[in-house]
Amino acid sequence: MVPDGPAGVDGLARRLVAEATALRRTVAVAESLTAGLVCAAVAGVPGASAVLRGGVVAYATDVKAALLGVDADLLAAHGPVHPDVARQMAQGVRSRLGADLGLATTGVAGPGPDRGRAAGTVFVAVAQAAGVHVRALQLRGDRDEVRRESTEHALRLLLERLRPEPGHPG
Amino acid sequence: MVPDGPAGVDGLARRLVAEATALRRTVAVAESLTAGLVCAAVAGVPGASAVLRGGVVAYATDVKAALLGVDADLLAAHGPVHPDVARQMAQGVRSRLGADLGLATTGVAGPGPDRGRAAGTVFVAVAQAAGVHVRALQLRGDRDEVRRESTEHALRLLLERLRPEPGHPG
Repeated sequence: MVPDGPAGVDGLARRLVAEATALRRTVAVAESLTAGLVCAAVAGVPGASAVLRGGVVAYATDVKAALLGVDADLLAAHGPVHPDVARQMAQGVRSRLGADLGLATTGVAGPGPDRGRAAGTVFVAVAQAAGVHVRALQLRGDRDEVRRESTEHALRLLLERLRPEPGHPG
Repeated sequence: MVPDGPAGVDGLARRLVAEATALRRTVAVAESLTAGLVCAAVAGVPGASAVLRGGVVAYATDVKAALLGVDADLLAAHGPVHPDVARQMAQGVRSRLGADLGLATTGVAGPGPDRGRAAGTVFVAVAQAAGVHVRALQLRGDRDEVRRESTEHALRLLLERLRPEPGHPG
């Protein structure tokens, strides 16, 4: 559970920078449909440089393989909007940027469906030493709304995994 | 010269996607202080996938060397806010993402100075087959304003270099 506090992307980013700074954890972000929104939100917080290593915007499908090491056969078989793609993006950006936590987003912003996936189908993932957590989302709204909500869900998942509850080891 | 049209980041991004699509040119972006804002602006335009390959957010200084091939000695001698760093970031992201044009931003968002560079000191660069153009900026405003204005100047430089005027080969 993420504790109560300021809602929205900016509030979540502030909490992330504060908590990750206190825990001395670093973060890297691999983004497809959000295309930089997650990184930019974190970097917008003064003091972000203690936490944010950087990220990869893997917008074209082949960039996911070339820069993040996502399995090309997986991409060919299922396309870029798949839970295992989110998983491998998070693992890839974590290792390539030398961060404690890797965060990834992939999905269909819309307006129309893409390769059989409905607009609003989104996967977010967090990789850390103990493993990877993937969350499937089905969002409503236009292109901008889907991207903004994806950014918010990604930051929420990262906050949850940053400080796992007792009994839910990270 | 960039022709008249809608101002601001969103308007510039729309013109970039329209013109690059017509010219069949692709774009990749290496961002430091803008940290994803340029990529996100381009990706916000429907049809962006014909143009945008993706990008690298090289927020930590060592990520500029590791992911973009910026000379580590240059970074050690001058820090990350230097015209040659912008130049090498643009060249690195262009080649690593296989794009026709590479765009880069590096600078001090503030609020305070960083390693002897005043807040608002920013360099943007565009790399293409014919060479690299770097532009030095001195911006005013708070952290958010410096990042937004840097995004706008980067998109303007890219639009200018996308379609060079006669007598100014790209």
